[in-house]
Amino acid sequence: MGAKILVSVLLFSLLIFRSSSAPSKRIRAYRPCKRLVFYFHDILYDGTNSKNATAAIVGAPAWGNRIKLSGQNHFGNMVVFDDPITLDNNLHSTPVGRAQGFYFYDKKEIFTAWLGFSFVFNSSEHKGSINFVGNDPLMNKTRDVSVVGGTGDFFMTRGVATLMTDAFEGEVYFRLRVDVKLYECW
Amino acid sequence: MGAKILVSVLLFSLLIFRSSSAPSKRIRAYRPCKRLVFYFHDILYDGTNSKNATAAIVGAPAWGNRIKLSGQNHFGNMVVFDDPITLDNNLHSTPVGRAQGFYFYDKKEIFTAWLGFSFVFNSSEHKGSINFVGNDPLMNKTRDVSVVGGTGDFFMTRGVATLMTDAFEGEVYFRLRVDVKLYECW
Amino acid sequence: MGAKILVSVLLFSLLIFRSSSAPSKRIRAYRPCKRLVFYFHDILYDGTNSKNATAAIVGAPAWGNRIKLSGQNHFGNMVVFDDPITLDNNLHSTPVGRAQGFYFYDKKEIFTAWLGFSFVFNSSEHKGSINFVGNDPLMNKTRDVSVVGGTGDFFMTRGVATLMTDAFEGEVYFRLRVDVKLYECW
Repeated sequence: MGAKILVSVLLFSLLIFRSSSAPSKRIRAYRPCKRLVFYFHDILYDGTNSKNATAAIVGAPAWGNRIKLSGQNHFGNMVVFDDPITLDNNLHSTPVGRAQGFYFYDKKEIFTAWLGFSFVFNSSEHKGSINFVGNDPLMNKTRDVSVVGGTGDFFMTRGVATLMTDAFEGEVYFRLRVDVKLYECW
Repeated sequence: MGAKILVSVLLFSLLIFRSSSAPSKRIRAYRPCKRLVFYFHDILYDGTNSKNATAAIVGAPAWGNRIKLSGQNHFGNMVVFDDPITLDNNLHSTPVGRAQGFYFYDKKEIFTAWLGFSFVFNSSEHKGSINFVGNDPLMNKTRDVSVVGGTGDFFMTRGVATLMTDAFEGEVYFRLRVDVKLYECW
Repeated sequence: MGAKILVSVLLFSLLIFRSSSAPSKRIRAYRPCKRLVFYFHDILYDGTNSKNATAAIVGAPAWGNRIKLSGQNHFGNMVVFDDPITLDNNLHSTPVGRAQGFYFYDKKEIFTAWLGFSFVFNSSEHKGSINFVGNDPLMNKTRDVSVVGGTGDFFMTRGVATLMTDAFEGEVYFRLRVDVKLYECW
């Protein structure tokens, strides 16, 4: 019993430590309770690719339109998407789910975006959804957005997802690698 | 004292267990710390119902417009709403709050949507807001979105809300039943 | 050892208490683990101020357009922004970050809005982002939105931000004071 209490006290101290406000410069070494890596593929409607397009411009500033991404680094273009999720970087691999949501470009001087979307799964592997929001400074090699919730297998989860542009072809196609690191698992 | 420690150790073990990553297939039986059921009513502007409309199309793909929901299962139509919340399924019941936010249709092959909205309360019963985001595969009988935060009486809350389409009339009216299950209450 | 266990048991009881469901009418006195006050400045594109504008209308209802905020209290106007963040209320102070995201007006009878945005920092002081969503009844002196996540220095954070309209000039300029109170710090 004595040893058991000691272990509990130690673990408990760790917990207290974890929930206290950490100084911002400290190097963090939290281990995810779940980690998943996926790719998703965005094919933007350009007036000619109706059949293959998985995304479309639905909003634009006064100086833009909904067929072609606007000048000023696409500032104000808003896009809705339903993109296939794959396990590898091949667009033609069997999708394991869908990335559904929207993004918009939000800086005039450089490409940056803001994203709100869900990973939606309905397979034997995963059932449920993971919900993401955050800013995407997409010229950076990697950037982080927040996992703000989940449902089904991902009930109540929270975490951080690291995005990496794995490929892009002009303004029509891009592929993101998403490293989902969940730190709250129920 | 001995018994008290024992109880603490047991509770503590439970806590450790709860915060560890649960296998995804395990049947979960979390009990909400708060549960609320509401209905909200969406009347979409169609060019003729300016007075009664509680929602309007504000974005559309290149092949759509802002008066009529577009083809391809409304893919890309974005709607802003300010809908009355009622306690029962009667549109004419006294509202207890407002559901304010936006949704957009996001799949070409079938109806699905993505939602970002708040329940806003300012009555003797409830003061404050509950914030929701998530995907809505609206052809499913029920589907879950995330409660990502709250203010006032719902300060810092998190949870899951189960949506059910309680009624719809063509493209102008629908009513959602929302079963809000909060699992983090402060 | 006995005293240490006693302290642990006491702390542990506190923890249990905090995570239980609090009655909604109880006066809350949670102390933020981090608190930050900023201002941000929104200059809306009006057809003439292309150079200075930090925001643009990208969506509008059928009765509106993307140059001028529409009637009915701007219901349905959606705006994308990339606004400078400053430490004081002076638009010309050196920015310490950017507020990037979108808002839309969502009530016909009065001005209210809904916001999704990030504070983006990349200075020696702060690196990382804070993500916000929520409704903004902007005629109220103060109103709260949710902090739903963060990255970098604000890894996994949650909290509440109190917004105050610090100034506005017609439909072209407004300045918000944002009091960010974080209650979950990792």
